[in-house]
Amino acid sequence: MILVAKIEDVRDARLLEPTDAVVRVTRACICGSDLWPYATLEPSETGRRMGHEAIGVVEAVGADVRTVKNGDVVVMPFAFSDGSCVFCHEGLHTSCIHGGFFGTSDIDAAQAEALRVPQADGTLFVLPVGEDDALMPSLLTLSDVMGTGHHAAVAARVGPGQTTAVVGDGAVGLCGVIAARRLGAEQVIILGRHADRIALAREFGATDVVSERGDEAVERVRELTGGFGVHSVLECVGLEQSMLTAIGIARPGGAVGRVGVPQNETMPASQPAFYDNITVSGGPAPVRAYIEELLPDVLEGRIRPGRVFDRVVGLDAVPNGYRAMNDREAIKVMVKP
Amino acid sequence: MILVAKIEDVRDARLLEPTDAVVRVTRACICGSDLWPYATLEPSETGRRMGHEAIGVVEAVGADVRTVKNGDVVVMPFAFSDGSCVFCHEGLHTSCIHGGFFGTSDIDAAQAEALRVPQADGTLFVLPVGEDDALMPSLLTLSDVMGTGHHAAVAARVGPGQTTAVVGDGAVGLCGVIAARRLGAEQVIILGRHADRIALAREFGATDVVSERGDEAVERVRELTGGFGVHSVLECVGLEQSMLTAIGIARPGGAVGRVGVPQNETMPASQPAFYDNITVSGGPAPVRAYIEELLPDVLEGRIRPGRVFDRVVGLDAVPNGYRAMNDREAIKVMVKP
Repeated sequence: MILVAKIEDVRDARLLEPTDAVVRVTRACICGSDLWPYATLEPSETGRRMGHEAIGVVEAVGADVRTVKNGDVVVMPFAFSDGSCVFCHEGLHTSCIHGGFFGTSDIDAAQAEALRVPQADGTLFVLPVGEDDALMPSLLTLSDVMGTGHHAAVAARVGPGQTTAVVGDGAVGLCGVIAARRLGAEQVIILGRHADRIALAREFGATDVVSERGDEAVERVRELTGGFGVHSVLECVGLEQSMLTAIGIARPGGAVGRVGVPQNETMPASQPAFYDNITVSGGPAPVRAYIEELLPDVLEGRIRPGRVFDRVVGLDAVPNGYRAMNDREAIKVMVKP
Repeated sequence: MILVAKIEDVRDARLLEPTDAVVRVTRACICGSDLWPYATLEPSETGRRMGHEAIGVVEAVGADVRTVKNGDVVVMPFAFSDGSCVFCHEGLHTSCIHGGFFGTSDIDAAQAEALRVPQADGTLFVLPVGEDDALMPSLLTLSDVMGTGHHAAVAARVGPGQTTAVVGDGAVGLCGVIAARRLGAEQVIILGRHADRIALAREFGATDVVSERGDEAVERVRELTGGFGVHSVLECVGLEQSMLTAIGIARPGGAVGRVGVPQNETMPASQPAFYDNITVSGGPAPVRAYIEELLPDVLEGRIRPGRVFDRVVGLDAVPNGYRAMNDREAIKVMVKP
């Protein structure tokens, strides 16, 4: 099977609603979750626009937009949200009543020169930097992977002094290592087997590496944790096997925070999830809610999640970026239109 | 198919370990979970001892028992635990390193005249009442159903002013209604269809009743909650359908606390559990941990969970008690040996 991503000319991005903005994309990325449709999407007449992570410059705003203005450098979370509904107020912007996801149905996507951003006031976060700031890679991760790793850690109830494991060594898993350490985890075990990613995980603060899989991985994590398993597991893959492993390495009373988009319809219900009182939590990360918390650490250099980018491509080379990530040649690809 | 429970003569209960006690059973019960083996257990030569809820009087203690003495009136949680291991210290007595469950393998069971209680100091809770106190029914629920309903509410993160639903109108579900109200839930929707149980649920504080099932139940709960679903769901059944309903009626960001012993191997992983960031928590309730919290409310009459008992049988009539509960003639049967 030959997998391809294609560049297509589409109609220029434009305002449709008075709450819209048009953003010229200065940085975008390819996401691990983009690889699922890359591998499985059937060919179609219309294709599907891709990309949901971006930083850019506001080029136009609708009549009702109040807090965002032309020329602002903004980070765009992978979901748009009005910022004012009951779920936004609760910090769950991914469930916004007037929200949605970039790159779905008629919503523009970010692997492009520009895109329409619905609910601009609630969605976009104005950055206090210029469009070519040196921190751009790390700032760009606030649109998804750093916020998503943080969400996994929050859902897994990571706390000071606790034991944590991260299932998956993709960009989200690596950001999960950063998030777990940032929230005070003492032991952070990364489950993965790619040398370059593992090396970065260690630099981000991982204390142990488990490269086994399945039952052997469970056994190895138990060995590393006095036989009990870890308090918190960050599930950053989304496969049935990774979920089984995640539940298997959780300590009784522990929690699994899952952010890997589930590729299966079911997960284990009884042993050991039920009998060990293991909590399963998580879902699409409300990254918009986390930007304010994470931004100061990025701006002051305390965390450097931008290091997950190990390749930069122009728009024309996006198909090659997909290939490189799919072949595990690149951890995460930045797109510079 | 004819279902039967049988009375058998077994060897008298006796001390085996220095940490054991022998308890003369003054009250026991039949549990909803006893009905699963009642319906499915294959006939065998040896049979299986049943019953895991009891109040009784201590008749003998081993040489190492320190806090429990002969003549004490004690409540016996459905799991035994040493009270001193790391999990007991964390309040998760059902995962005690030296613990286990009554009525499994070589551990005595409570639908009997007397039984051996391992880890007596950690397991038994001495009650400040006589063996025929009028509060006995409510005190007896501290061995399982009231503590289990409370655990469901805790796992479902019930809090002041929140909306709650209870799936299942058995004794645990009814105690879940008590627990949800006790923890401050404003709206408590009971999902069930047995008139006697629903009436009791209302007396316990349920504000709404949904007797529909499946998709219709989900729709009805949404109607009752402004279209969103409830913050907290107490899953007190354990079937695949009840779990689907529980997840379906949870509000985005909400939580399901499950205490019904799962009769299926899997539960839904993706829609809506993942996309709505719904937390699934719970398991066997550490009722030993909850007795101290719940006991004052029972002693002072603020909660009356003992009202779930609507039939009392002697030991000889236990088989008829199983039949009555299985046929939904009785909510919960007390056994008075």
